[in-house]
Amino acid sequence: MTQLIRARMGETTDEMRAVAADERLDAELVRSEVAAGRMVIPANTVHLKQGLRPIGIGIAARTKINANLGKSSLSSDIVCEVEKMLLAVRYGADTVMDLSTGADIDDVRRRIIAAASVPVGTVPIYQVAEQLDDIAEMEPKHFLDVVEQQAAQGVDYMTIHAGILRDHLPLTENRVTGIVSRGGALTAKWMTVRGQENPFYTHFDALCEIMRAYDVTWSLGDGLRPGCLADASDEAQFAELRALGQLGRRARQLGCQVMIEGPGHIPLHQIERNVRLQQEWCDGAPFYVLGPVVTDIAPGYDHITSAIGATMAAWYGAAMLCYVTPKEHLGLPDRDDVRQGVIAYKIAAHAADVARGRPGAADRDLALSRARFAFDWDEQFRLSLDPETARTMHAQSRAQPADGTRYCTMCGPKFCSMKTTEELRALGRRYPNAR
Amino acid sequence: MTQLIRARMGETTDEMRAVAADERLDAELVRSEVAAGRMVIPANTVHLKQGLRPIGIGIAARTKINANLGKSSLSSDIVCEVEKMLLAVRYGADTVMDLSTGADIDDVRRRIIAAASVPVGTVPIYQVAEQLDDIAEMEPKHFLDVVEQQAAQGVDYMTIHAGILRDHLPLTENRVTGIVSRGGALTAKWMTVRGQENPFYTHFDALCEIMRAYDVTWSLGDGLRPGCLADASDEAQFAELRALGQLGRRARQLGCQVMIEGPGHIPLHQIERNVRLQQEWCDGAPFYVLGPVVTDIAPGYDHITSAIGATMAAWYGAAMLCYVTPKEHLGLPDRDDVRQGVIAYKIAAHAADVARGRPGAADRDLALSRARFAFDWDEQFRLSLDPETARTMHAQSRAQPADGTRYCTMCGPKFCSMKTTEELRALGRRYPNAR
Repeated sequence: MTQLIRARMGETTDEMRAVAADERLDAELVRSEVAAGRMVIPANTVHLKQGLRPIGIGIAARTKINANLGKSSLSSDIVCEVEKMLLAVRYGADTVMDLSTGADIDDVRRRIIAAASVPVGTVPIYQVAEQLDDIAEMEPKHFLDVVEQQAAQGVDYMTIHAGILRDHLPLTENRVTGIVSRGGALTAKWMTVRGQENPFYTHFDALCEIMRAYDVTWSLGDGLRPGCLADASDEAQFAELRALGQLGRRARQLGCQVMIEGPGHIPLHQIERNVRLQQEWCDGAPFYVLGPVVTDIAPGYDHITSAIGATMAAWYGAAMLCYVTPKEHLGLPDRDDVRQGVIAYKIAAHAADVARGRPGAADRDLALSRARFAFDWDEQFRLSLDPETARTMHAQSRAQPADGTRYCTMCGPKFCSMKTTEELRALGRRYPNAR
Repeated sequence: MTQLIRARMGETTDEMRAVAADERLDAELVRSEVAAGRMVIPANTVHLKQGLRPIGIGIAARTKINANLGKSSLSSDIVCEVEKMLLAVRYGADTVMDLSTGADIDDVRRRIIAAASVPVGTVPIYQVAEQLDDIAEMEPKHFLDVVEQQAAQGVDYMTIHAGILRDHLPLTENRVTGIVSRGGALTAKWMTVRGQENPFYTHFDALCEIMRAYDVTWSLGDGLRPGCLADASDEAQFAELRALGQLGRRARQLGCQVMIEGPGHIPLHQIERNVRLQQEWCDGAPFYVLGPVVTDIAPGYDHITSAIGATMAAWYGAAMLCYVTPKEHLGLPDRDDVRQGVIAYKIAAHAADVARGRPGAADRDLALSRARFAFDWDEQFRLSLDPETARTMHAQSRAQPADGTRYCTMCGPKFCSMKTTEELRALGRRYPNAR
């Protein structure tokens, strides 16, 4: 019994009530959004028993952010990845994905799920690929077994690239960066070598059965997401998106919750169109986008290039933003990269929530601004997305005034505009006619 | 003879030709844009003789970015500020503003102008305020003398808050953060204590005369820009913007080039409206915006909060973006903050140029993406906004493959999607029917 099936039957679950309280929404609205497939509550029944705090992802809720973690065969270890997860959650990640590859990935996943209060997502093909010399050897049964195993471990949502079809592959031939989704590229290779249709597509109903049994939410992967601006919004991308829309409908028919994944690399002026097409073709299913980065020319700063695109995507209607760290395109993120990525995406999600006029979204901005005007530094830091960094930067400024002084090193006492405004307001009372 | 007067007389100056070549525009288009007041070429005749490279700022040109520098009475020194200027220009700042306060500011300015190949802007009221115990003592003659002195030094554009009028002050009384422009706050204090109208407004024609003599470009300051989301787009801000539009017309009548400054702190959904109103009320004069930051809750990360707003402002039509560094609201930027601010704004300007479809804007994205797909790391770094940072991050990744290996630590050899795409394309040739 998934949240979707129960919502359709008119039942308001504990998880829906928790989401409603968290979002300041009516529980009945949450139920109806879940029933309509416009909101998902990724909550594997196994993880729920281990203390998962359910969240709602969808247009009616606050914009959510995901932090990707995971070791590779070349870097990091289990302890480090669990620490990164805790750090990401501390700074406000709403979900995490364990994208580990290499040895011990079962163990990493088990430890992350046990320690995570937030939903955990995975990409099961990574484990299958790890166990084989060549992805072309994969049998559908093998993949189904891995999905079942991960579901039984408590994974809350899974990215499976079921929408990349044989017909789509010729559409990528002239692309500048080809297929940049790891799962998409592996799936394409399988199809090409075996000369068969996508096995996740042909075995979709069987996969849905497993997902439904544990209430694992589908995150229908965009294996053909563009890897550069030049490939954005091309035929390959949109052909797959149409297929994802169909699969989403099928999954919901079978009682499964569904999110749809989106790009990637998209120039500014194409973001709105990408979101609108997803909403139209996928019946308003929650759109889970990676960035998008809005220029390719800033490796080392892709948390910024992508936070710009992510803010706009969320404003136009994306429901969850997958973070990108400064190390994107260059290496695996370390702890500091995780922090930078999460904060950049908290900014993106929050700015979009303010612009979308979500009830109460701008309250924190107002409270912090009042503290700023009152020279209440402690309160200002407390309300910040990253209090420690703000406090450190403030303290680093040379010739820091003693606590309680009503100016800072930015302008000094004579040029502090807020101090001048204070004087001005006092003057206004003394010289009322001067106004 | 200013660029504006010469353009109106039908003359295409060397500076217009240089701008045209730089922008890949027709020289006649540049001339007509300058004549119409939609483009400015801030080039003080004194600075031109010292080797200034002229640039064009306006809707027809690439989006420009400005880096603010300057010591305060509490922090930094001359050498440090000159170094910051050179650093900012190296990373791509199109102009710099010297916002120094405290002692020695004449000397700082002189040294920065001498060393700067880019236009230099200032805010002359800072020097006046520095010389007085209280701004209320300022006499208009004193201010005019300082403007003349700075013009003679070679300052290319000046921010003067001539549009904040007595009638506007009551509109700020219920603001959360009052008047956050330093120049605006000082001007307001002067008006309130003296019970007189804004002296820059009443002496506007005399100021224009000085500006015209050296071809100093007006940067009409927005003294009432909002200092938080709650104050954005309020009556005070827009009343001043209307006055700036009038002053701009008057300045152009008197032969002066004019930019209009804009906010500040603006939520996402109000940015387009702000740009449209500026274009309408100011006759398409170049809009020079500070950020805007799109949320108040991220001190320490305001290069990001503001790069998001700046990208959108530029996309909607702003001509120049004034950077914000991570230290904004906390202290004076150090060298690393300057770099972070400049890169964030290069990203914003470039992303907007791509979205606005400027000829050739996306060429560098394409070239970098081709290098990325070809595993040509050196070329990828060379084309990056910050090659050194990208190279360092790549090198820091543990277990770095030897040069020439066609994968990186991000995914490792087995999960490299670009490597898989290569294999796939080779397979496609071997198994053409499999497709």
